Parts: sequence; structure tokens; C-alpha cells
Amino acid sequence: MTKHVCTLKVDLAERSYPIYIGSNLLADSTIYRPHIHGQQILIVTNTTVAPLYLAAVKSALDGYQVETVILPDGEQYKTLSVWQTIIDSLLENRFDRRCTVIGLGGGVIGDMAGFAAACYQRGVYFIQIPTTLLAQVDSSVGGKTGVNHPLGKNMIGAFYQPQCVIADIDTLGTLEDRQLSAGLAEVIKYGLIGDPDFFQWLENNMEGLMGRDQSLLSYAIERSCNDKAAVVAADEREAGNRALLNLGHTFGHAIETGVGYGEWLHGEAVGTGICMAADLSRRLGWLNAECQQRIEQLIKRAGLPMHPPAALNSDRLLELMSVDKKVLASRIRLVLMNQLGFSVVTDDFDPEALKGTLNEYGRAAS
Amino acid sequence: MTKHVCTLKVDLAERSYPIYIGSNLLADSTIYRPHIHGQQILIVTNTTVAPLYLAAVKSALDGYQVETVILPDGEQYKTLSVWQTIIDSLLENRFDRRCTVIGLGGGVIGDMAGFAAACYQRGVYFIQIPTTLLAQVDSSVGGKTGVNHPLGKNMIGAFYQPQCVIADIDTLGTLEDRQLSAGLAEVIKYGLIGDPDFFQWLENNMEGLMGRDQSLLSYAIERSCNDKAAVVAADEREAGNRALLNLGHTFGHAIETGVGYGEWLHGEAVGTGICMAADLSRRLGWLNAECQQRIEQLIKRAGLPMHPPAALNSDRLLELMSVDKKVLASRIRLVLMNQLGFSVVTDDFDPEALKGTLNEYGRAAS
Repeated sequence: MTKHVCTLKVDLAERSYPIYIGSNLLADSTIYRPHIHGQQILIVTNTTVAPLYLAAVKSALDGYQVETVILPDGEQYKTLSVWQTIIDSLLENRFDRRCTVIGLGGGVIGDMAGFAAACYQRGVYFIQIPTTLLAQVDSSVGGKTGVNHPLGKNMIGAFYQPQCVIADIDTLGTLEDRQLSAGLAEVIKYGLIGDPDFFQWLENNMEGLMGRDQSLLSYAIERSCNDKAAVVAADEREAGNRALLNLGHTFGHAIETGVGYGEWLHGEAVGTGICMAADLSRRLGWLNAECQQRIEQLIKRAGLPMHPPAALNSDRLLELMSVDKKVLASRIRLVLMNQLGFSVVTDDFDPEALKGTLNEYGRAAS
Repeated sequence: MTKHVCTLKVDLAERSYPIYIGSNLLADSTIYRPHIHGQQILIVTNTTVAPLYLAAVKSALDGYQVETVILPDGEQYKTLSVWQTIIDSLLENRFDRRCTVIGLGGGVIGDMAGFAAACYQRGVYFIQIPTTLLAQVDSSVGGKTGVNHPLGKNMIGAFYQPQCVIADIDTLGTLEDRQLSAGLAEVIKYGLIGDPDFFQWLENNMEGLMGRDQSLLSYAIERSCNDKAAVVAADEREAGNRALLNLGHTFGHAIETGVGYGEWLHGEAVGTGICMAADLSRRLGWLNAECQQRIEQLIKRAGLPMHPPAALNSDRLLELMSVDKKVLASRIRLVLMNQLGFSVVTDDFDPEALKGTLNEYGRAAS
């Protein structure tokens, strides 16, 4: 069988690595072998993904000592105590520091497996196999790993780069509709932070993407990863412009924390967060009403929610935004749009406009 | 008051940092300020050190928001759950990613505070103030941070470099004798892994060091840090020769794990481990009996134990050594001496000789 494999290189000096994008990759042992150094492999996956893809991955790893940790599925399990079960398994199996941890699943699995690889014996090898659209376009580039804390998302973690990323688009065939939409939120984000042509391409192809056309999905993943890789290569540790990737995320994290992890998908919260960022940008006079509408339309066509749940009022949203990582000593820093396809990171905006957006989107405080 | 400050630079490209060694440094705000970036500082210390030195450090940090976490004292508290209280405090105080974590205490405090700084929001600033001889000559160079796991020491951690290290030798005045001896074990180690002149200097000055002569201690700290910095700069992430620094440690970790963390001091276990490594080196014909005796004599004069506790027999020691990080896929890798003042990392030795050493030092298996 012939197959199309696109290989992107994420350029981070001695921490550079390839992303393989294509179909029928999971069971292909030739893709894995150059990136595995020792004899011991731990596959970290979850109860949803294991029955679908674990056997295929294992078949590619014939000849190695392969152990498995199967975690419960959902953002509510992205905790330090669940993460510890990965570390326990590595130690119980007496894995040495040449071992490889493979994260097989969505963003939660990638974040936890990567953080375990970062910390076990102060760092072992890591391979990421993202099986959701969101993980393929987001977690596969940038090396962010970690777990949540009851007081904030991703508050405990590390920057840690994998040996390679294997994005098999066949896995998108089994994805729930909700998960597909969540991934598209991040895809739309890339168009909005610096790639207006891609935004327009998405406007022209959203129905095809929602219909899971493989060649359209493949193109969207490649372009998203390319866009993200360019941002990350210029600013690996988020000292500056990497923060652009957080468009919609400060609003989104507040929603996720407010409703309780696992209720909303991360991508769903980002979708609503993008609408809120567009609204605030329009209130500040940086974006015209027509552009705001085009953004809202695309979010809607991607099947994403456009408003926070009614239970979150504006005061609560503001409070939750204030503990986000992007907040510097009590000034809220946001990613806002200054024209369609271009965004900026700023804390220099009228707080009254933010209140306007929060009142519009959060149920009025009683 | 004039004071002597020796500044060593640990050369790790963009992660280079200075070590200040001298007396009367703790309350000197001019030393801290160039290394602090935001407004928020968390001091992590323990119940022994806080009453002695916390006030002095706080007095140097006037004008910042300073919070404190005071942990119980001892290796048995170097756990993930105690570590989490540091993270909780950072979040409860809403510290942002420009904050600084200061570790004020011995090796346990430095390892835990450093690992918290490494993981909080994926990395914030870190300043280390080692208050024991062991921490001043060991933890201040190299960036190893982490916590223990019931199945092995330092199994969870990160390589993370501080902004600076402040080694105030005045703090050695309040050190228990046992702690001073523990530090000298690591000092002797530097002589044995590549600095024979320093070993001889230690033979000539051990009584003065035990008597806490400040200028002798200061010299021993500077030379130890220099020796370690040279090894670390050549191999930051322990791909090769950095493992030399583990002379005595594979034996030592087995003792520490076997008796239960907190019973033996780390340096005490390393002292005994050095004797065991010398014994094995002599059995292999790499070291003559006279050199072995000189090493044992110096360990003894430093007030260190020369044998594992009777409760640990040779089988148990071997089992414990097999889970150490230096073990690659079931071959035990050790640091052994091939002449007085020079060591090698190797797994190429006769296992019968190792059994001979373990039988000599561990109570015979029943």
C-alpha cells in the first residue's frame, strides 16, 4: 500500500524533531525505530483509545519490552495523582533512563505522558501519537506538558520536546463530532493570529472538514502545525510572541475552570473564547463589526458553542481570568485581534471594554 | 564590614549562573537584587533553618512581596506530596510566572524548591541558598532537582539551573557535627574522581576542617564547586562523564533506601559507599591496598560511618542497587577507582568481585 507521509520539522536546535502526518502510520514499525534508543517502552493511553488503536501500536513495537498504562478518559483526570500512576508503572517495571514513553491519545494523554517523560529520572525519551484533531494541530508542536491544579489549568508542567510526533489521520475517523469541532477551534485560531489566507481557506472548506474529507483534514493539520512551529521556533519558552497561541485561551480557561474540568472540552472553551476576544477587539475599535461576524460565523459552522454556560456570571469569569498564567502581577494580559488574521498580546486596553464583553457573555451578576 | 566574596561562574551557555561564597552574605540585599525579576518571592525552608536564618534573608528582600513555606526537616519529607504544598502556596498566593522561588536550607530543601520552580507554570526563577556543607559543595552546582519515590531516590525530577547560588559559610557554624561530616564525604569524593592534589590537601587539613576553620572550609567549598562545575559544564544532562559524580552513590543510595529515608544522612551513606567502591576497586586489582587504606582513613577522620547498618545483608543491598538510576537494562554501572584520585564509570567488571564486596560489607545472607 502506498501512503502519503508529510514530514514537518520543528526547528529547535538540538531539540528539533519531525512530525509525520499521513494515513496508515500507527502500525508502521519503520517510523518508530529510528526514534527509540533503549529496549523499554511504556505506552500511556486511555480507556477510549486503547480498544481502538493500542493493538496496532503494539504490533509495530515487536521485539521491545512494551508495558501499558491505561488511564480514565477526560480532562478531569489530568491531575498530579493520576500522573503519578505513570511514574509508579515506570518504577515498578524497573525502566531505566534510556526508556521511551509513548503518549497515545488526545491532548490530556499527551500532556501527562510528556510530563512523566520529562520528570522520570529527570528526563527520558518521549514519542507522541495524537489521536484527536485538537492534539494533532496543537499538542504535537511546542513541547508543553503538564497537569492541572484545582486552582488553575496546566499550572504544573514542563517544556519538553518529543523525539517525534506521529499524526495518523485515520484516527480522526473514530472521533466524536464534538471532538472534531473542538479541534477545529484551534485550527481557526491559527488563521486568526497571523495567517489570513488560511482563515479564508477555512471559510471556503468548513463543510468539507466537518464531513471529514481526508485530504482537507490533512492539509488543515499540516498548515496548522507549520503555523505553530514558526511561532514556537521563534520563542520556545513563551518569553514573547508565543503567547499569541493563547488567543481565546484566557477566556477559555476561565470557562473550563468555572464549569469544572471535563464538562466542556478544551477546544469548545477556546471556540467561545475566540468569540469573546473578537467581541472585545470590536469594542476597542480594533476590529470592525463585519470581521467579528465572519469570525462568529466560522466558529458556528465548526459546531462550536458561542457563549459560556449560563451558570458563569461576569464577576466569576473575571475572577477566574485573574489566576490564569498570562496574568502578570494582577494585570490581565490578553491576545486580541487588530485586524482579521492578525493578533497581538497586550495588557494595554480599557478595562471597561473587558467588563462590557464579560457582561455581554456572562450572565449579569446578581 | 569588609567581606570576602568568591564568585564562581557555572558555565552552561544561556543557563550560566554565579555562585557567591563568603561570610555575612545572607542579609546583603545587593547580592539578591540583580537576580530577581518580578515582585513576588516565595522562600522555601524548614523548621530547623527558619528560626536561624529566615529573618536575615527576609531583611534583604524588603520591598518585595515575600511569602514563606516552612517544611518539616529531613530526607523522609522529600516526597511528591510535601512538594505539592510548595505548588499550592504559589497558587494560593497567585504568584505569576515572573516570581522567584528561594530554597533556604540543605540539599532536601534545594531539591524540592528547585523542582517546584522548574514545574510551576512550566518554570519560574530560582535562587538557592544552601546552608549545609553538603548542599554548598554538591547541590549548588549542576541543576539537579527532584523528589524521592518509595521505590527509589530522586526518581522524579528535572535538570533546572538557578539564577544564582548564595553559599554563606557563616551558616556552617550552626551545623550539627553529623551534618558537617556528611558534607565532607562529598568533598572527599571530588578528590577521588579527578583531583589527587585536593585529596592530599584534605589528608593534610582534615582536623582543621572538622574544627570548622573558616578559611579552610571556604577553600574546600570553592575547590569542590570548581571541580564539580568543570564536570557539569562538559556534560550537563549526564550523558557521559557527569556520572563520575556518583562515586559512592549507587552503594549509598542502596543503604539510604534500605534503612528508610531520613535514618542515614545522604553524605553518611556516600561515605560508606566510597569505602565500598574502594574495596571493589582493590578486589578488581585497579587500586592497591595502601591506597584503599588511605581512603578509608580519610573517611574515618571525617567522622563518617565505614559500614552499612547490620540490618542490610548482601542480597538486599544487591537488590536495592539494581533499581538505581545508573543501572542500564539490568547491568549495574558503577563508578570505580583506577588509581588514587582518578575514577571511571563502568559496567565492565567481574560480578564475583562485587559479590565479594557486598559479602564483606553486608551481613551475610541467612
